[in-house]
Amino acid sequence: MLSKNKIKFIQSLSRKKNREQEAVFLVEGNKLVAEAVASRFSVKLIAGTAGFLVDNQFSARAADEVIECSQDELKKASLLKSPQQALAVVEIRTHQLTIAQLTDEFSLALDFVQDPGNLGTIIRIADWFGIKQVLCSENSVDCYNPKVIQASMGAIFRVQVHYLDLEKLASEAHQSQLPVYGTFMDGENIYSSNLSAHGILVMGNEGNGISPALADKIPHKIHIPSFARDNGRSESLNVATATAICCSEFKRRIF
Amino acid sequence: MLSKNKIKFIQSLSRKKNREQEAVFLVEGNKLVAEAVASRFSVKLIAGTAGFLVDNQFSARAADEVIECSQDELKKASLLKSPQQALAVVEIRTHQLTIAQLTDEFSLALDFVQDPGNLGTIIRIADWFGIKQVLCSENSVDCYNPKVIQASMGAIFRVQVHYLDLEKLASEAHQSQLPVYGTFMDGENIYSSNLSAHGILVMGNEGNGISPALADKIPHKIHIPSFARDNGRSESLNVATATAICCSEFKRRIF
Repeated sequence: MLSKNKIKFIQSLSRKKNREQEAVFLVEGNKLVAEAVASRFSVKLIAGTAGFLVDNQFSARAADEVIECSQDELKKASLLKSPQQALAVVEIRTHQLTIAQLTDEFSLALDFVQDPGNLGTIIRIADWFGIKQVLCSENSVDCYNPKVIQASMGAIFRVQVHYLDLEKLASEAHQSQLPVYGTFMDGENIYSSNLSAHGILVMGNEGNGISPALADKIPHKIHIPSFARDNGRSESLNVATATAICCSEFKRRIF
Repeated sequence: MLSKNKIKFIQSLSRKKNREQEAVFLVEGNKLVAEAVASRFSVKLIAGTAGFLVDNQFSARAADEVIECSQDELKKASLLKSPQQALAVVEIRTHQLTIAQLTDEFSLALDFVQDPGNLGTIIRIADWFGIKQVLCSENSVDCYNPKVIQASMGAIFRVQVHYLDLEKLASEAHQSQLPVYGTFMDGENIYSSNLSAHGILVMGNEGNGISPALADKIPHKIHIPSFARDNGRSESLNVATATAICCSEFKRRIF
C-alpha cells in the first residue's frame, strides 16, 4: 500500500526544488521503471501493481523499497493523466566532466532549451546517435523534470546530461582545438559544410536561438537550408527536429 | 463580446464530429490567426482582444466576422491552458488528389500516425522541406485536431493533408512507376541507399510501424541505422524525428 505520505512525497517530485533537496527524481510507466532497474542508477522505490511486480520479478537488490499498490493509489501518486502500472523514485546521478572527456567525442550543447518535451526528445536523439554527453546551459530546463523523463523514453539512463557555463566550455574547447559548431540563420549550408567527427554542436533556445555572447565563441556557424519554394514564408524547424537533422548529417559521414 | 453560444461553439470544435459537421476548425494564438488570414483558407470568425485587433489591422475581407473580446472571454473559449490574445474559426478545405499530381513530387505518407503532436510536427517538417502533400491512412489522427494545428505552427495552411487508402495509393504509384519507400527495422541503410528525387515515403505508426498489408506493397525498404555502441539496448526514434532525418536525406542529394 502507498501511504498518504509516500503519495505526497512522490507528487512533490514535480518540483525541481524538491528533487534537488532529496536528490531523486520520478520515473513513470512500466517500461521506464524496468529500464531504471536495469540501469546504473540507484532505485530508491518501486511502486507497482501486483500484476506488474509478478511480470517483472525484480531481484531483492533492484530497489531499496518495493511497494505493491493498487491502480487507484498509483493514480493518486501519478503526475500523468493515464498512469500505467508502476512508478519509481530514482537517485539523481551527478557526473564529473572534463574537457578531456569530450575531445574524442561528438557532443551536443543546448543553450537555454526551455521546453521539457524538446529536451527529452533531444536526449533520445543523442542516445540513438551514440552521443554520450549533452551539455546544457545553466538556464536550460532541468533534465529530471518528469516531462523530460517521459519524452526521453529511457535515454536519460544512458546519456549523461550536464549543466555548465557554455561560454567557458566553448573557450576551453577552443584551447583544446576541439571544433565548436552552432546553428544560425546565416550559417553555412550544413549539407556542403566540412563537418568533423569530433566536436561540440550547440543548439539554441526555441524562440531566440543561440545567445549573442555564446555565438561570439562559436567559430563554425552552420544552417539547415529550407527547401520551401517561397522563401518569404515563416517556416521554421522545432529545435529537436533540427538537432536530429544535424546529428544525422554529422554522423552519416563517419558511418 | 463573445456570447455564451459562441464560446460553446468554439469549444465544441475540440471534437472531430463537430468539426466535420460544421466544416470548420479552430486556430489559436496571435501568430497562427494572422497566418490563417494571410492564407488561402476562408476565415469565418476572428475573436481577439482590442490590443490584438489594433496591432493587426485586418481588412474587412479578412474574416466573415471579427469580434473584439476580453482576455477573460478568450480564456473561457480557449482549449489552451494559457491562451494568447486571439483565436479564429477557419473553414476546412478539401483538396482533390490524383496520382498525376504526385509523379513529379516527393511526398510523405503516414500509416496510422496517432499522436496529434507527431502529425503537427510532421506537417511542419513537410513545409520546411518543400513537400506539398502529406497522405494519411484513414485511421490516422485528424489534421484539424487543435493539437495538430498548434504543433504544425502554421504549416497546415501551406501543406495539403489528404486521407485515403494507402494500399490503393501504393498500387497506383507502382503502375505509374513512382517509387514508394518505407522505413522498416530490417530496411537498407538509408545513408547508402539510392534515393530518388520523386516518390512517396511511408512512415508508420508510433508503436507498430507500417502495417503488414501495406508493407507488402512497398518495394523500397529503408532504415535509419543507430549509432549507439551497445545495439542490444532499446533505442528508438520518435516517428516525427525519423521523418525529419529521412526527408533531410532525400532532399540533400538534390540540393
